[in-house]
Amino acid sequence: MDTRSASRQGLKIDGQRLYHTLGELGQIGSYVDEETGLSGVNRLALSAADKQGRNQVVTWMRALGLSVTVDRIGNVYGRRAGVRDDLPPVMIGSHIDSVPTAGRFDGCLGVLGGLEIVQTLNANDVHTLRPLTVAFFTDEEGCRFGTDMLGSAVATGRIALDEAYRLRDANGCVLVDELRGTGFLGAADERLTPPHAYLECHIEQGPVLRSRGVDIGVVSGVQAISWHELTITGKSAHAGTTPMYLRADAGVAAARINLKLREMISSGQFGNEMRATMGAIAPNPGLVNIVPGKVRATVDLRNPSDPHMKDAEAAIIAFYQTVEECEHVSIRWRQSARTDSVKFDDSVARRIANGATALGLSHEPITSGAGHDAQEMSRLCKTAMVFVPGEYDGISHNPREYSTMEQCARGVDVLMAVALELADES
Amino acid sequence: MDTRSASRQGLKIDGQRLYHTLGELGQIGSYVDEETGLSGVNRLALSAADKQGRNQVVTWMRALGLSVTVDRIGNVYGRRAGVRDDLPPVMIGSHIDSVPTAGRFDGCLGVLGGLEIVQTLNANDVHTLRPLTVAFFTDEEGCRFGTDMLGSAVATGRIALDEAYRLRDANGCVLVDELRGTGFLGAADERLTPPHAYLECHIEQGPVLRSRGVDIGVVSGVQAISWHELTITGKSAHAGTTPMYLRADAGVAAARINLKLREMISSGQFGNEMRATMGAIAPNPGLVNIVPGKVRATVDLRNPSDPHMKDAEAAIIAFYQTVEECEHVSIRWRQSARTDSVKFDDSVARRIANGATALGLSHEPITSGAGHDAQEMSRLCKTAMVFVPGEYDGISHNPREYSTMEQCARGVDVLMAVALELADES
Repeated sequence: MDTRSASRQGLKIDGQRLYHTLGELGQIGSYVDEETGLSGVNRLALSAADKQGRNQVVTWMRALGLSVTVDRIGNVYGRRAGVRDDLPPVMIGSHIDSVPTAGRFDGCLGVLGGLEIVQTLNANDVHTLRPLTVAFFTDEEGCRFGTDMLGSAVATGRIALDEAYRLRDANGCVLVDELRGTGFLGAADERLTPPHAYLECHIEQGPVLRSRGVDIGVVSGVQAISWHELTITGKSAHAGTTPMYLRADAGVAAARINLKLREMISSGQFGNEMRATMGAIAPNPGLVNIVPGKVRATVDLRNPSDPHMKDAEAAIIAFYQTVEECEHVSIRWRQSARTDSVKFDDSVARRIANGATALGLSHEPITSGAGHDAQEMSRLCKTAMVFVPGEYDGISHNPREYSTMEQCARGVDVLMAVALELADES
Repeated sequence: MDTRSASRQGLKIDGQRLYHTLGELGQIGSYVDEETGLSGVNRLALSAADKQGRNQVVTWMRALGLSVTVDRIGNVYGRRAGVRDDLPPVMIGSHIDSVPTAGRFDGCLGVLGGLEIVQTLNANDVHTLRPLTVAFFTDEEGCRFGTDMLGSAVATGRIALDEAYRLRDANGCVLVDELRGTGFLGAADERLTPPHAYLECHIEQGPVLRSRGVDIGVVSGVQAISWHELTITGKSAHAGTTPMYLRADAGVAAARINLKLREMISSGQFGNEMRATMGAIAPNPGLVNIVPGKVRATVDLRNPSDPHMKDAEAAIIAFYQTVEECEHVSIRWRQSARTDSVKFDDSVARRIANGATALGLSHEPITSGAGHDAQEMSRLCKTAMVFVPGEYDGISHNPREYSTMEQCARGVDVLMAVALELADES
């Protein structure tokens, strides 16, 4: 054991090599973004570009000596043998599929970071007690088939395989056919045997770490999410001829709900980390001189506290009724998404914090605002995540998405330190 | 002169015949509205349906013995000779083009009401001193080529002919080609020789007359109109990961402007007849989990008082600045339409009121909330309008648009009485 510890001391990945690999994968499915002039990435799950990306990563896995398994939902696992190969592995993973207007970091950092760790261990002849598996999951983004974290949800039993197979994209293409078409309809059981631990390094996709000058985010969990789809029905009317007292303006009703969300946040009544957004507002007919008779709108609520989330939901639903009465409109709403908060493993989070400190890096706990494969895996084994900061207020799902070589390398260094500790646990 | 007066006494149009003609014209361009199940009308200016409608009205004009002239902007004038045919005529007019989701009354009542008057005069062998002209103007609605009251604006010199000719619809079709294609690129000078007077009967397109139980609206003028097209630029951001203090939410900015309009109205500071509407709100990207980075929105202000309108414009423009500062967004705005209030001729309005009283009909002065060809004609000659009530809160630009046979007939009866008085003036 001492020899092992010694060989691990001060071990660092090669940031330039990692960054180069991120750049190579980012070439696949690349396009020139008209707004920014930057090169963006479009690798929708199981598209031709995703197939090419998957084949590239599998080629890299094999070149590193990993034994590659593809399961029946297209998740790919590259396994590096351990000294005790019978023990459950430590798994490092994320995804390589993308939204249609992506950068090169979202998901890829976690997967290629895992491969960089393997390469570093290989080069330094480091052998871990437990096997080390680098995984990438199918369709984390959910942009094509409508269900995010699909592959990891199937692997951990939240979504049944046959249900996933039947999903269709906007063109009617069926998921199982697309799996077959890309050559990633594997034979391995989709239900994953619990690993010893699961680790994921990801860009923050937000501005917090960068604005506080912190190197490493120790992700304590994922906040609860609640989405409402609203249909507000008032009465279309001529903007010039209809007196105000006879109007039922669905646009005004939507505006009141939007500002109520703001008011709920500043009240502090639902915790200090509540977030709320009206992202979609579509009035009908939507013409300058017609009072909107119908508005479709969305409400996105987030809260790291489940009780606060429940209270916020009750408050906004009560407000829909108030608006119905005051504005003479009717409001139908549908819960289009709802997840409770996820709490990651404290002991692994502590290891991440300690690992960062040992490497001389600053760190802070942070709650993830977005969903990740790690939240699915947390049902199966002890799980935690490392966040790295992003430039430009952490913009993501956009070609401007950007983390520096140092930011990426630091995150993967911490990941490696923690992975080694866990992989040496007997 | 006495003989003439005698033959006019108690003269009434045939309401059933008028209503039947409205129904016949309403068949042209009709469609079944999905929302209401009612038969709607779609006769966009210079479309195939409008061509068919125009040909039908011209056929009716000729059958009544009118001599038909088509000018170079497609306005159609049907002239009934006067005893003194050298005197400028009394003109009765409106339009027969429609919005894409229209009823059968908007515009058509004024034109077919004019023809009904001619038919009544013919049947009763009544001859007026001055000629009587029934007119319909090209593209009053402005839905296809973007400029409303186009034909009457060209006829009265506000818009130049060549400027009108160059207008294009959304498909790139050029107006002059469409005029030629429908066979309505006439040879007559588009600049109208001032008539003796201009009269227009129109549905109110609002709820006031109906809700007060009044038969006839004596239109005193048209209110001022001001349209702003707003482009609000904030910053797109992930709804889950972006803290509230770092957001620049263009949707919230639009909501604040929308509610400010409401507040301005209730303050009473801009008169009691101010109207304000945000009809269009289009967020980009408009997705549930993305803070809107850009919103295009419109503001429609109306006021019968020009000074109140100016004050309201100044107030909302100042508020744009407030929102820019508070919400960290930038707001560009463009004046997409602006007309001062129009005051119709007092003496003609008095005749309308007296005519209604003589027919035993209740009447009230009313300001038009919508624009009409009459406001263009008022630059050329003494002008006034008769409004008739509409059912269902006067809904218009909708297949539910509906005025009863009696409501229509009363309006045209009053119009006839006033037209005869004016046409007998030497």
